Amino acid sequence: MNKKMDDLIAFLKNRGFVYPSSSIYGGLANTWDFGPLGAMIKINLKNYFNHFFIDEQENNYYFDSSIILNPKVWEVSGHLKKFNDYIITCLNDNKIYRADELMEEYTDYIFEDLTLLEAEKIIQEQIKLKKYQDKTRWSKISNFNLMFKTNYSKTDNKINDVYFRPETAQGIFINFKNICDSMNLKLPFGIGQIGKSFRNEITPKNFIFRTKEFEQMELEYFTYQKQATKDFEKYLKLIDVFLLNLGFKNDDFSKNNIAKNKLAHYSKKTIDYEYNFSFGKKELLGIANRGNFDLEKHQQISKERLQYFDTKENKWITPNIIEVSIGIERLLLAIFDNLYVKEEERNILKLPFFLAPYKIAICPLTDKLNQEGEKLLKELKKINLGPIILQTGGTIGKRYRKHDEIGTFFIITIDFETLKDNKITIRERDTKKQERIEISKIKDYIKTKINL
Amino acid sequence: MNKKMDDLIAFLKNRGFVYPSSSIYGGLANTWDFGPLGAMIKINLKNYFNHFFIDEQENNYYFDSSIILNPKVWEVSGHLKKFNDYIITCLNDNKIYRADELMEEYTDYIFEDLTLLEAEKIIQEQIKLKKYQDKTRWSKISNFNLMFKTNYSKTDNKINDVYFRPETAQGIFINFKNICDSMNLKLPFGIGQIGKSFRNEITPKNFIFRTKEFEQMELEYFTYQKQATKDFEKYLKLIDVFLLNLGFKNDDFSKNNIAKNKLAHYSKKTIDYEYNFSFGKKELLGIANRGNFDLEKHQQISKERLQYFDTKENKWITPNIIEVSIGIERLLLAIFDNLYVKEEERNILKLPFFLAPYKIAICPLTDKLNQEGEKLLKELKKINLGPIILQTGGTIGKRYRKHDEIGTFFIITIDFETLKDNKITIRERDTKKQERIEISKIKDYIKTKINL
Repeated sequence: MNKKMDDLIAFLKNRGFVYPSSSIYGGLANTWDFGPLGAMIKINLKNYFNHFFIDEQENNYYFDSSIILNPKVWEVSGHLKKFNDYIITCLNDNKIYRADELMEEYTDYIFEDLTLLEAEKIIQEQIKLKKYQDKTRWSKISNFNLMFKTNYSKTDNKINDVYFRPETAQGIFINFKNICDSMNLKLPFGIGQIGKSFRNEITPKNFIFRTKEFEQMELEYFTYQKQATKDFEKYLKLIDVFLLNLGFKNDDFSKNNIAKNKLAHYSKKTIDYEYNFSFGKKELLGIANRGNFDLEKHQQISKERLQYFDTKENKWITPNIIEVSIGIERLLLAIFDNLYVKEEERNILKLPFFLAPYKIAICPLTDKLNQEGEKLLKELKKINLGPIILQTGGTIGKRYRKHDEIGTFFIITIDFETLKDNKITIRERDTKKQERIEISKIKDYIKTKINL
Repeated sequence: MNKKMDDLIAFLKNRGFVYPSSSIYGGLANTWDFGPLGAMIKINLKNYFNHFFIDEQENNYYFDSSIILNPKVWEVSGHLKKFNDYIITCLNDNKIYRADELMEEYTDYIFEDLTLLEAEKIIQEQIKLKKYQDKTRWSKISNFNLMFKTNYSKTDNKINDVYFRPETAQGIFINFKNICDSMNLKLPFGIGQIGKSFRNEITPKNFIFRTKEFEQMELEYFTYQKQATKDFEKYLKLIDVFLLNLGFKNDDFSKNNIAKNKLAHYSKKTIDYEYNFSFGKKELLGIANRGNFDLEKHQQISKERLQYFDTKENKWITPNIIEVSIGIERLLLAIFDNLYVKEEERNILKLPFFLAPYKIAICPLTDKLNQEGEKLLKELKKINLGPIILQTGGTIGKRYRKHDEIGTFFIITIDFETLKDNKITIRERDTKKQERIEISKIKDYIKTKINL
């Protein structure tokens, strides 16, 4: 990590956004909890995903499937066999390493270009850990499946080992027939889902960039084979707009067209969006053309028809799937990294209005005006703009600085003149511009400012 | 179960609300997936909990902690030792049973009144399963911990066994110091959290009433010891209002003050709300006075101060916790059970406006008016009332019946007169009352009807 990231992590902890989880017990490998303000932004971000990718699109719908599915799902999807990391154990202390990362850190070889035996030999012979030097001893390389497994109580006497999903997508695919039968949808249509997924990452790292437990926002867009390329492009453009609306600029991210030999086992084409995090350029989110791999596989093994009856061509077809897949924590990190700005006199979290935890802070100039503040709070809550907070006590400058730092979009000051002329001063976070307006005009003022 | 519940389950599946999960692979013990309409209601219900118990209360805040915490948390909270069911295995087929349920079903004894040895003897000697009759053989009674356990990759070489949380509450308690340090809150304050919890129930049952994976909405209200009884009463009343707003009537539920010897290990007082489900009167949700059990325990073992510095009394105090705990799936089941009504000519899902998946369906009388429908759809979306759907094709009567059944609150019909007078017919779901009004008056009409 680096200074900027350290500052960000400290800020997020000290201001109630993100805490190291289980910290009273020494923590737990890279787990994090979202405090009051972080939880609010997370909810806002999820709502925005739903709004943008479901409500605003023509034929897209919600979904919410179980985290624990019948284990057969993961066998058929290929995750049981192929969702692995290659690991190697240091025999001196039984610590586990990812073979590819070890090789990248200590040698000039590229792991993917070697056979497993070659890689193993190079690690065993050439890689010496600092603390063990020449005494470093390595195991063989082995496969480590990234799914968390647990025991299901055997009341039905059949299923024992179950897995916590590593992606929300499969919960949608296996319900394709249920959705078609009950919803009477016309192809193309999209099914979106937000929920926790779990991956037993060997090296979670970089704060909330990669965690073992994380939340996904996924959209599976079912379309005609011949339309797939066009729809892929359509969603590429939508993702661009989505990111711009979150405060990114076009040159903040780049698109990485994944090489054929590095594609996931289910993908025909994947483009990773990469973002310049302060710790380096890294994958931010992805869009993939999964073809009909998943539906065909599940249909083949389950013997259930997972197809769409096309009334135009009068035949059953297996739709092509375009997938948008976004990890919430990682996107939030990019947002914080991008929008937390240190100026000479103040720190600002330059969140767009819809992401800000508080839309307005009401600051009575002195405690004698607190009652006026409470009155205004009640009144403004009726406008339904989102959370508003009454901030009393301390100098006004201190309150400005506090709310600039947590992203509050507007600050309204009440002074003694207010009692006479029914006017307040409203200040915009980013520009610091202040205007004195009538209380009855606050709603219109804000709506104009944020283009509602 | 019974006919009414069977009907409900069929309706929910056929209309896109709730599907049996993993059904293409024969399902998985009582797991269910929420289809497009079910997912929408679930989101609406969560938003309403947040609105009612957090936004509208004076000093309540959001939270979002990890599902997997340091295992020490569950040791200290008592869940590792005490969160158990007593089980007994039928040795003929290795099927597991809950000892208390077995006893209730086959005998007149009350499990809680017996010692384990007595209970074991009664089961072994007196309970004969139908399929094995006198050949039925039983194991000893043993403890079965309800937490799902999994292996964590040992990169830090320390922690191996971890658990999926059985309640969201602990994630809040262990962050008490983080919250106090960063948020500068004044006691009393509340911290609310919505998220998945997992319990390896031996006998999940009654559709979504009890599932192994479920979502909780919890509020932990930290208050002064001497105020705890008053605040308990305050939240009791709030829960009443919450339930009334969800469409329940006062005599739909009753309050069960749990006897001292049946309280959970952390509770000083618990009141369960019970609802008359069609399959019997069962627990719906709960409110508990957890005292300072959790904070004291965690403080004692972690050696971190989990206290609040009270500036009035100038000393550190351990707050008392009042907990509101609601399982979303169970509450949804009660809502469906309560509001799905079969009339002679139609079935209606009498959801309150804010829960309805679609607020309005726009029905052009014939396909020739579909373009008008699309125009109106675009216009009405700007009002921001929530999801609106354009429903074309089929007779108008059929479309009424469909949307009555999925809970759509208003239906707007466009006819050829509309082209001349710019008026539409708007119909209210429950009363079937229709009014012909100008398009420009739709917003006001709806706002008046739903008291916005």
